[in-house]
Amino acid sequence: MTGDKTIEGGDSCSEQLPQLTSVAVAGLGLIGGSLAQRLACRGMTVYGWDLSQDFYPQAVSSGIRCMPSLEDMVRADPDLLVIATPLKAIDDLLPRIKKEMNPQTTLTDVGSVKQQVLHSVEKAGLADSYVGAHPMAGNEQEGFYASSSDLMDNALWAITVADSTDYRRFLQVGQMITAYASNEFITVDAAIHDQAAALISHMPHAVSTALINRMVESPVANVAYSLSAGSWRDMTRVALTSPERTKAMIEENPQEVSSLLKTMADSLRDLSRALDQKDNRYLDQFFAFGNPYRQSQWEQRRLMNQFGQRTEPEHRTLTIDQSDWKNQLGSVSRNAQSVVSILSPSQMEIKQYPHL
Amino acid sequence: MTGDKTIEGGDSCSEQLPQLTSVAVAGLGLIGGSLAQRLACRGMTVYGWDLSQDFYPQAVSSGIRCMPSLEDMVRADPDLLVIATPLKAIDDLLPRIKKEMNPQTTLTDVGSVKQQVLHSVEKAGLADSYVGAHPMAGNEQEGFYASSSDLMDNALWAITVADSTDYRRFLQVGQMITAYASNEFITVDAAIHDQAAALISHMPHAVSTALINRMVESPVANVAYSLSAGSWRDMTRVALTSPERTKAMIEENPQEVSSLLKTMADSLRDLSRALDQKDNRYLDQFFAFGNPYRQSQWEQRRLMNQFGQRTEPEHRTLTIDQSDWKNQLGSVSRNAQSVVSILSPSQMEIKQYPHL
Repeated sequence: MTGDKTIEGGDSCSEQLPQLTSVAVAGLGLIGGSLAQRLACRGMTVYGWDLSQDFYPQAVSSGIRCMPSLEDMVRADPDLLVIATPLKAIDDLLPRIKKEMNPQTTLTDVGSVKQQVLHSVEKAGLADSYVGAHPMAGNEQEGFYASSSDLMDNALWAITVADSTDYRRFLQVGQMITAYASNEFITVDAAIHDQAAALISHMPHAVSTALINRMVESPVANVAYSLSAGSWRDMTRVALTSPERTKAMIEENPQEVSSLLKTMADSLRDLSRALDQKDNRYLDQFFAFGNPYRQSQWEQRRLMNQFGQRTEPEHRTLTIDQSDWKNQLGSVSRNAQSVVSILSPSQMEIKQYPHL
Repeated sequence: MTGDKTIEGGDSCSEQLPQLTSVAVAGLGLIGGSLAQRLACRGMTVYGWDLSQDFYPQAVSSGIRCMPSLEDMVRADPDLLVIATPLKAIDDLLPRIKKEMNPQTTLTDVGSVKQQVLHSVEKAGLADSYVGAHPMAGNEQEGFYASSSDLMDNALWAITVADSTDYRRFLQVGQMITAYASNEFITVDAAIHDQAAALISHMPHAVSTALINRMVESPVANVAYSLSAGSWRDMTRVALTSPERTKAMIEENPQEVSSLLKTMADSLRDLSRALDQKDNRYLDQFFAFGNPYRQSQWEQRRLMNQFGQRTEPEHRTLTIDQSDWKNQLGSVSRNAQSVVSILSPSQMEIKQYPHL
């Protein structure tokens, strides 16, 4: 272990950003492999490890220092250790990591649900070193051969923080995202992240799957299939991803997904009743309820048409009160603002996203 | 009225295709205007009429003979009269049409639900002259100024037939679609059409609307909005069309939409229960049920990747038994085959679509 780390309680109000020169990525699949290549491209020292190692020669030629075992990689004392394995592997890896990890190393991950990982990390006694993260990037492929350094172009990340989260470790993860991956992030707690992910991704995947199920069971399936056009294609595209992967994704966030599915079921049943009873008042409300979202989207389209694709909203500088950073950055996220750059521990550049 | 029409009971087995040189389009909005321009481009005599006439100069320059009144247009004795007004206007127009229409003229329409129009036509005493039609084309705009002759490029039409449908009138509509609009069609009865349209379009529009309603009411709306990416965008695109138009579309096909919404609600509620109870058997079934559709789509993608975008399946020639044409063409549709060309009253060229 090296002793030159800068993370110490005493300097948490220093105006210097914490050291970040090396990162280790456990799991070099689509996301881990893409992140490792991206960070290596941008000059970080990147260690990598994966259970399957047949692609190591290609990974090495992308600038990744491939390690024979997880333990070897952890013992290299990276500033950041990123877990990018499937979620179900994490409980087995954490005790092995804990045994070898320098307490100065910051542990993070890129899993698509955050409460479950947080519980695993707490159980393994690593909560003090941990800051969760989730990049909004991906496609329907998998494995290192599908990964690439540009998969994360323009990705927005969520960094998840808990009461125990250390600010300097948070800054390290934020620096990796902004300074090295050239991405942006919002800061949320794990429960809010999982609620939001269920709403925008996990539940819609289940709904899309339910739609193609209706076609398969339909007595007019082939006629419907022939006549299907844009709206059907859009709404069923995500149902074409591997059903095993979708099932796993939903099972990892069961409470939030289940609760939203119930609300959707109630809403569709009420709409059905309103159609049966010609309940015009209900129908009007159902179709008008989403107008705040529609108007925001229509406004985005108008701006796109007026100013073109590359209009970037203005950035502004936010001064961070380091004694209240979690509340402050949480409120920034609730206002649909992201952090695009960390200028110092007390100054960040933020950007406005479309909002309701 | 002219007396040179060729539709007579006596020659229904003739090998000559029925006369088709002129068409009249009532309602020159997005669909009617696009069809009128397309048919005029391709050499038909096209009459047009609309309630609002401010765009007539532009329509005339597109080759449409614009008429001051519906009655004037009907009295021009077109071979085909196409109703392309909003559905809710049809009940008022039909008696006016009936008063002036040459019995030789074939009446058709382009409405997005077919049972309702069929009932209106029967009520108006025009069923003997009528063959329903519905082109799968459109976008989120409306009005003549949004119309264009290429809106219907590659469109597939449904022609709807009933027990009373006359074969030569059917051939006229089929000729308009294939020979003049350069499109294809399938043949179905009105109930099957409305069931299929509810499945692939009307119900999914309602589901998409229910999705954006969930975001508007979410306590984490702005975080979710910021983090939303491809799957959310795809599944909510159709919810961005005018809610009034979506409401009208669903109200025009209430039974089929209501029934599918109930099935969707049951399915989502069962899935929610299965997540709560970790009912792995149910979850496996839910995610595997759509595999026949997935496999068909994956195969399409594979062919696209292998042979490129423009791979056209082979056509084959179908011999029509004119005493059994409805069953024969209905079975062609159920096998996901479309008619691409009418060679003679007893020979059609058909094409295979992807199927289950």
